[in-house]
Amino acid sequence: MKRRNFLTTATLGAAVGALATPALAQAAAKVSWRLTSGFPKSLDTIYGAAETFAATVKDATGGNFEIQCFPAGEIVPMPEASDAVAGGVVEMTHTASYYYWGKNAAFALGTAVPFGLNARGINAWHYHGGGVDMMNEFYATQGLIGFPGGNTGCQMGGWWRKEINSVADLAGVKMRIAGIGGKVMEALGVVPQQIPGGDIYPSLERGTIDAAEWVGPYDDEKLGLNKVAPYYYYPGFWEGGPSLHFMINMEKWNSLSPEYQAIVKTAAAMANGDMLAKYDARNPAALRSLVAGGALLRPYPQDVLDAAYAAANKLYVEFSATNPDFAKIWASQEAFRNEANLFNQVAEYTFDTFMIRNRPKG
Amino acid sequence: MKRRNFLTTATLGAAVGALATPALAQAAAKVSWRLTSGFPKSLDTIYGAAETFAATVKDATGGNFEIQCFPAGEIVPMPEASDAVAGGVVEMTHTASYYYWGKNAAFALGTAVPFGLNARGINAWHYHGGGVDMMNEFYATQGLIGFPGGNTGCQMGGWWRKEINSVADLAGVKMRIAGIGGKVMEALGVVPQQIPGGDIYPSLERGTIDAAEWVGPYDDEKLGLNKVAPYYYYPGFWEGGPSLHFMINMEKWNSLSPEYQAIVKTAAAMANGDMLAKYDARNPAALRSLVAGGALLRPYPQDVLDAAYAAANKLYVEFSATNPDFAKIWASQEAFRNEANLFNQVAEYTFDTFMIRNRPKG
Repeated sequence: MKRRNFLTTATLGAAVGALATPALAQAAAKVSWRLTSGFPKSLDTIYGAAETFAATVKDATGGNFEIQCFPAGEIVPMPEASDAVAGGVVEMTHTASYYYWGKNAAFALGTAVPFGLNARGINAWHYHGGGVDMMNEFYATQGLIGFPGGNTGCQMGGWWRKEINSVADLAGVKMRIAGIGGKVMEALGVVPQQIPGGDIYPSLERGTIDAAEWVGPYDDEKLGLNKVAPYYYYPGFWEGGPSLHFMINMEKWNSLSPEYQAIVKTAAAMANGDMLAKYDARNPAALRSLVAGGALLRPYPQDVLDAAYAAANKLYVEFSATNPDFAKIWASQEAFRNEANLFNQVAEYTFDTFMIRNRPKG
Repeated sequence: MKRRNFLTTATLGAAVGALATPALAQAAAKVSWRLTSGFPKSLDTIYGAAETFAATVKDATGGNFEIQCFPAGEIVPMPEASDAVAGGVVEMTHTASYYYWGKNAAFALGTAVPFGLNARGINAWHYHGGGVDMMNEFYATQGLIGFPGGNTGCQMGGWWRKEINSVADLAGVKMRIAGIGGKVMEALGVVPQQIPGGDIYPSLERGTIDAAEWVGPYDDEKLGLNKVAPYYYYPGFWEGGPSLHFMINMEKWNSLSPEYQAIVKTAAAMANGDMLAKYDARNPAALRSLVAGGALLRPYPQDVLDAAYAAANKLYVEFSATNPDFAKIWASQEAFRNEANLFNQVAEYTFDTFMIRNRPKG
């Protein structure tokens, strides 16, 4: 039975009138939303975070608030998701804010920029460094409200057909890499390519491209890239701790009761932590499997990291000069990152160093 | 008006009968619980996590599910919290499971053991490595059910009146350190002391003790220990990523509707991530302030870490030989830790290393 219909029934007596307080009425309201994911179902960790979120909202509301998840492309393709939400085609999306950096570079700061924050850092910035409010001040100008919705942890640096020993080896290399990471690599001589996930394997196999980045071991293994591009570089310095977002149409958000808003925010925060935990639990076995399958692990040469860092910093100065949204948010995030690393280097890093060195080998 | 009373009113007609489906009836049920925190209010990060959790549950239920938080000692002192919950004196506690390791060493594994998992690692183990279920299999034997409820990140290694250069310097040192960390330090010659937080400063000032560990910069600063024991050691290898818990009386948990259970679990997961984010956001400024106030940062000497690691591993073999709960859970956690560090050493550690080295100095 529909609660709303019930409440409009005019024949109810005084006792029922007392029941129909706004809180109760809205808590039981039937709401049905559609969520367009920015990802395919094959990425069960990322796509799964939206499903985990939706299931939680449903459970917490006794089935009254249902959010149906659709993979990218089923309603709208990923690049159109933010517009589809802002325009009310769907109520919400689960996506990476940086996909929309072409509209405004400030979108990128919700997710990750090269040499930005690691996973713990961006969570701290979002939740206790003013990040959620600052991003929402910007998202509001786009008709959206967003909440952090998952993290992959530091990504890998991609698959290369040939070993690289210095910046010189990057000249003319065609690499599948998008966004600001692509801009940084371009400054180092790489020719960035935009290729959907499903086309990476054949492109590398045929030699149409020379390198490609995807996510990390658990997701990369599904594409089988180790068979056609054996050098597996790290770290993915353009995504040190990328944060996904649940983005919601502003009017639809405002139409929710305070209870439902609280449930959505809390479920998003739960899914945010849950996705990182799932990656952290799944990645080690996938890394083992990839190495057993021929992947050759290589750190990026120091001069590549140094040149990329300089190129990234130059880019942020350029963006900031012409884009006040980017300038404001990056100033906050950069300062927060530097302080986070000040602290990180003491107890955390020393503990991790000891534990890594003392790891049983084999 | 009380929803329960309303539902027992016998004069209602058919339309109201239709309303009283179990889901709706229970979603609106008035529930009032008491939570005894294991911590004082002065630890606003930790105590605050319980308040954040309770406020979220209240908001998500339109005020129908209220959880009142009490600092340690107001209803029962911290050491009695798990018994008070199991016995139904209070419905729940927010505490560190390892406080109760004297009852059964397996309690410690819910929080942290020396050289255990870091913060991301224990979250991954809890949520996607079988940890929550495994701990709850054990907690059920104690009349409890628990959910991870916050993390401090890797703690600091405490305040020392004198510099230590090797294991030899630990002989006879009286250090305020509890639990299994104290057992490990004891194996290295330290004489562990159990002293409440409020007594640490005068004990160090008078020289009744020579060293004391507390939490990390943000909490430690409040005690002013830098003024009486200037050497600030790191890392707190006995707490690489300690996880708190919301622990609930099993019968009270079972009495909740599925909706309320979902809300409690989700709010706990939210608070779990939120507390770590708050520490990560607050610790850097506190570390700066402590160093400006005379704290002398020192890493533990390598031979201290090595000897402590050997002592810890010996202890786990001993516990496992006589305690099947500990044996089962530690086997899971140790294997998970080793795999987590296998992965951590690749992208994450390399990224963090670069970012720490390139941090603007000053």
